[in-house]
Amino acid sequence: MALLVSDREVAAVLDASTTVAAMRDALLAAHAGRLVAPPRASAPLGGGRMVLTAGQLTDEWYGYRTYDTFGHPQGEQLVVLHDGRTGVVRAVAVGEELGSRRTGGLGGVAVDALARPDAATLGVIGSGGQAWTQVWAAAAVRPLREVTVHSRSAARREAFAARVRAELGIPARAVATARAAVAGRDVVVLATTSHTPVLAAADLAPGAHVNAVGFKQRGRAEFGTDLLAAADVLVTDSPAQAMAYDPPMLAALPPYAGRLADLGAVLAGAAPGRTGADQVSVFCSTGLAGTEVFLLDRLVRVGAARL
Amino acid sequence: MALLVSDREVAAVLDASTTVAAMRDALLAAHAGRLVAPPRASAPLGGGRMVLTAGQLTDEWYGYRTYDTFGHPQGEQLVVLHDGRTGVVRAVAVGEELGSRRTGGLGGVAVDALARPDAATLGVIGSGGQAWTQVWAAAAVRPLREVTVHSRSAARREAFAARVRAELGIPARAVATARAAVAGRDVVVLATTSHTPVLAAADLAPGAHVNAVGFKQRGRAEFGTDLLAAADVLVTDSPAQAMAYDPPMLAALPPYAGRLADLGAVLAGAAPGRTGADQVSVFCSTGLAGTEVFLLDRLVRVGAARL
Repeated sequence: MALLVSDREVAAVLDASTTVAAMRDALLAAHAGRLVAPPRASAPLGGGRMVLTAGQLTDEWYGYRTYDTFGHPQGEQLVVLHDGRTGVVRAVAVGEELGSRRTGGLGGVAVDALARPDAATLGVIGSGGQAWTQVWAAAAVRPLREVTVHSRSAARREAFAARVRAELGIPARAVATARAAVAGRDVVVLATTSHTPVLAAADLAPGAHVNAVGFKQRGRAEFGTDLLAAADVLVTDSPAQAMAYDPPMLAALPPYAGRLADLGAVLAGAAPGRTGADQVSVFCSTGLAGTEVFLLDRLVRVGAARL
Repeated sequence: MALLVSDREVAAVLDASTTVAAMRDALLAAHAGRLVAPPRASAPLGGGRMVLTAGQLTDEWYGYRTYDTFGHPQGEQLVVLHDGRTGVVRAVAVGEELGSRRTGGLGGVAVDALARPDAATLGVIGSGGQAWTQVWAAAAVRPLREVTVHSRSAARREAFAARVRAELGIPARAVATARAAVAGRDVVVLATTSHTPVLAAADLAPGAHVNAVGFKQRGRAEFGTDLLAAADVLVTDSPAQAMAYDPPMLAALPPYAGRLADLGAVLAGAAPGRTGADQVSVFCSTGLAGTEVFLLDRLVRVGAARL
């Protein structure tokens, strides 16, 4: 009988260290060609589309995530894991936590691989669910001593700072401007829904690492090309998906595309990462396909071992 | 929390009458334009494809079925039902029963609409799961007094006849030839995996109704064009899907395509059905998309009322 996994079970089993470790393994498997992730498929319905992103770990499992574009605030996604040998459904996750933690986990891998080893401060712009899982994962790979947060709503940024203090045990402050949030920070997270730049690259400290999680396309991006021009190291979790954005992803256009490296290749030592303490590194998150199923497989294995 | 539905729960709630009634409602909803079912979408993986068929009942629900083409004998399908107003996942069915009963139920609607009112004998060629659900559903719409069955394996056809006697309480005989199975029968079911004709239209009795469930394409069909030529009434559950077969469905090619009617239109009185006791009627089953989700919605409603 298939295991039905709710957001509560995801939260109970997939702590930040477990999630980041799983996403590191997924990126290495993708780099090695073992994690197969074809372009997404979709079917039009009245008022929206049903979308399927499939994935497969050769000889082990296959599965998919489904989501829709109706925009229901409480709409739920599914992630399904099939046994690769029998086709039997091993687990079905319903909700949002698995997908959120997956994206956070990929960001955590990027911070671990690209931020300075002694990085200890983090500034985040945005105070939604994506912003949260980025900070949650970053805190698992660097011992953060302070988090600063800015978002347009004073109430929401204060609540975010309070949550960082309460759940992560890290001193945190809400600040009134994006510039104040990122000034002097070792790690910066951009996780807004903005279509226009929310920071200037000149506001970053030398040696900063940036995780860019929100819109990053031509005509619709939370940062400008000044950030890409300033980046000594430019990395994404899926060059193939980056090249397929429509409108195009800024980092996948000339002159940046030639420098856009695969995070999996960096992890494998096949592409250079940070080579100096003053370099600026930028991670453009795409959400490597197949990683939700990879994480559900990890959840089932870890959960079985723990329970 | 989403309801996880196994084959056992499907079997417990969806008896033949309930299933046929649901499929009748689905066909009428499709005819009225309320049941939306776009072409299937698929994503290639190593060794097979992940396929999604979506459906939507306007203002009520949306969802999909997924299956793959790896050919695992124990491979499982999923059917997912989302609430149309909130996007929340109401139910997830894992297994084979829902899909099998759905196809059987569509066949039962066709028998009810097109077989003679006094039809009382049924001959079936094939002894697999599809053959079973066709007989199971037909028995819910006509009081059958005898079933004859032929398939290539003597052991399997004997087991099928024994199951008809035991589970449906209908006298049943296994016979050695396809011709003997259909001779003089009021209702005939073709449910084989054959790529070549398994019967001649001349073997049918006047007034027979035929449900054709197996392959029905040019160069790959369990019946020949003699059956289509003999059909006074020619019907399918989805003209749109019939037209999209590749290779083409025989009944969707000239000169038959012009006569191929929509079963939903027949039910609604918008297209003629049988008009004489000696007419031969043929139902070409395509498996109208969206009907699996329709049936899962019905299961949830009926199950909630019963439990």
